[in-house]
Amino acid sequence: MPQPRDTQRIAVDAMGGDLGPAEVVEAVKLALAQQPALNPITLVGDEAQLVPLLDRAGLRVGDSERLALLHAPEVITMDDKPVLALRRKKNSSMLRAIELVKDGSASVVVSCGNTGALMAGGTLRLRTMQGVARPALAAVVPRAGGHFVLIDAGANPDARPEHLLHNAILGSHYCRVRLHTKATTAPRVGLMSIGTEEGKGNALTAEAHALLRSAHDAGILNYSGQIEGFQVFAEAGGGGVDVVVCDGFVGNIMLKSWESLVKFFSSIIKTELRANPLRMAGALMAKGAFSALKSRIDPDSHSGAPLLGLRGNILKAHGSSKRTAICAAICAAGEIITAEMNQHIEADVRRAAPLLSSSAQARAEIASSPPPSPQN
Amino acid sequence: MPQPRDTQRIAVDAMGGDLGPAEVVEAVKLALAQQPALNPITLVGDEAQLVPLLDRAGLRVGDSERLALLHAPEVITMDDKPVLALRRKKNSSMLRAIELVKDGSASVVVSCGNTGALMAGGTLRLRTMQGVARPALAAVVPRAGGHFVLIDAGANPDARPEHLLHNAILGSHYCRVRLHTKATTAPRVGLMSIGTEEGKGNALTAEAHALLRSAHDAGILNYSGQIEGFQVFAEAGGGGVDVVVCDGFVGNIMLKSWESLVKFFSSIIKTELRANPLRMAGALMAKGAFSALKSRIDPDSHSGAPLLGLRGNILKAHGSSKRTAICAAICAAGEIITAEMNQHIEADVRRAAPLLSSSAQARAEIASSPPPSPQN
Repeated sequence: MPQPRDTQRIAVDAMGGDLGPAEVVEAVKLALAQQPALNPITLVGDEAQLVPLLDRAGLRVGDSERLALLHAPEVITMDDKPVLALRRKKNSSMLRAIELVKDGSASVVVSCGNTGALMAGGTLRLRTMQGVARPALAAVVPRAGGHFVLIDAGANPDARPEHLLHNAILGSHYCRVRLHTKATTAPRVGLMSIGTEEGKGNALTAEAHALLRSAHDAGILNYSGQIEGFQVFAEAGGGGVDVVVCDGFVGNIMLKSWESLVKFFSSIIKTELRANPLRMAGALMAKGAFSALKSRIDPDSHSGAPLLGLRGNILKAHGSSKRTAICAAICAAGEIITAEMNQHIEADVRRAAPLLSSSAQARAEIASSPPPSPQN
Repeated sequence: MPQPRDTQRIAVDAMGGDLGPAEVVEAVKLALAQQPALNPITLVGDEAQLVPLLDRAGLRVGDSERLALLHAPEVITMDDKPVLALRRKKNSSMLRAIELVKDGSASVVVSCGNTGALMAGGTLRLRTMQGVARPALAAVVPRAGGHFVLIDAGANPDARPEHLLHNAILGSHYCRVRLHTKATTAPRVGLMSIGTEEGKGNALTAEAHALLRSAHDAGILNYSGQIEGFQVFAEAGGGGVDVVVCDGFVGNIMLKSWESLVKFFSSIIKTELRANPLRMAGALMAKGAFSALKSRIDPDSHSGAPLLGLRGNILKAHGSSKRTAICAAICAAGEIITAEMNQHIEADVRRAAPLLSSSAQARAEIASSPPPSPQN
């Protein structure tokens, strides 16, 4: 059932993050102060630990309708095997939080816990939206002149073309909500590939490209074509797009390798700046530049990678998230609700359904025709 | 027929690079001075342009047996469509240079020309080695504490598991030659994936992982398992490997997105360092650090991405390569010959052949069994 736009009902998994429940409680306090529409936040976790932490933070359940507490004695840890943990820890904070969404008491779950368990738990308990076969994980990444949404960042490593079409729809709506793309210009969608010309790419992108183009022609998407690796961090005018669509295998590898590269790059800079006293003095004078760089590429400000395409939403914050990052994820969850994102997604998925049936037909024809000549 | 180890016969495509034949001629001069084993370098291109350039460089064909000239009046440009150009420009410097390898007058071609044409021309004219179905493009990439070989960087976007096994063999031998990995410790090979545990990844990596493990058990490779994106730039002890194996789709996207990210990162640093006079002064004092950083990640020192798995080798230098980069590529070509790299590859491909037939059998069994349960 639809809920009033001003009521952002969020379930927050208080356990399972690297910094423990104290950091989550402080994040909830921040979020409640920042965003009046959050109503209520249900904190899910071990009461014995949470009540003293809430006391210390000056928060009391019952003082306000905006904060609720749901006792869940078990914790799924980072080391737990996802499927096993979901089966054995029925009373875990994560599963109980997901169930709040399933029974309609909340619209979004925010958790810093075990990613695999959260993805699997969300998929199994909430199930996908009507017409969507697989959920996709979205991430917001900085680029020259702005940010883009990368989707799928790792939920579905063996994607079919129709999954990529759905990723594009999911990513476009998430981009609108999170990056506040103006309603007059729909987010530009690019399909991750290895060449921008027709015929470049692999078997998956060839079919997905055709689907995305027909979705563009049908007014469902603003598809600007295939993009190559060298365009990913480019400015909007220089080949960059707002939504980068790929399968979960490519997306996960890209995202994690970028983190690895930034770490490597930063460590070289640090080492080189400490190599002699002159450089050290120079680095001290220029240190504002390095803090600015750090905040520019800081993932915390766009914390919360959502698993999209489910009946309800799951927002995963980094395991090591500090209170500000968790607070940002909670507020993002609120924005998703207020924007009625899922309703808009469902409408577009329905509009795109006829494209898929003709694509399945085309695929059957391709399968019965002779194999294409080798790629040049 | 095998050639004496001390004779590095190289064909150099003099045309088609962004900086024109003058830069290539200067590179040849540098290479001849640096590496006495280069004998001969055959410069392929338009005589009318090359003779005056050779004169100006103080090089004369005929003065020494170490330099030869082959006239080829046509040029495949960067804007040419690869397949069309190969069909129409039979007398292009690129095709004539490739034919020198085909007829045994040279062992390796070095070119800064049109990548697509070079890949297609090399594959079509030289054909793949016995037992190798698809050639693969290798690239040398810096990481913490060293470099790694990325293979395939874009030749084969729709890879099958056996292609990845061959990529691992090709990459290991190239790594030995280029990164001078000690013969006592075979290069560590990692399979690019989205999780290090068994069962993580996609359908392709699941099969490739099993193949690579059996090649390891057979003593053909030093396979250290699947690696994730966050390990790519890590030090050897911290999860990094010497050879990163993937299909050409993932490899090309990774490599180009890394270039894009470094450019983005560098532009932020530059802008921030120019934001005020204090930072500018600091940047000036620390500028040695930035030059060191630049040279650390400079692709020129490992210039020349080879297309491996062919009967002969094709080395592609960046289109905008300066003389030192082209010279480095020529010397790399020489190292490949002296190390008898292709003979070693052929031997390992033969040793791995029995693994492939049992893998094909396993695949047939998988195809006839019920589908696996969804990934967790």
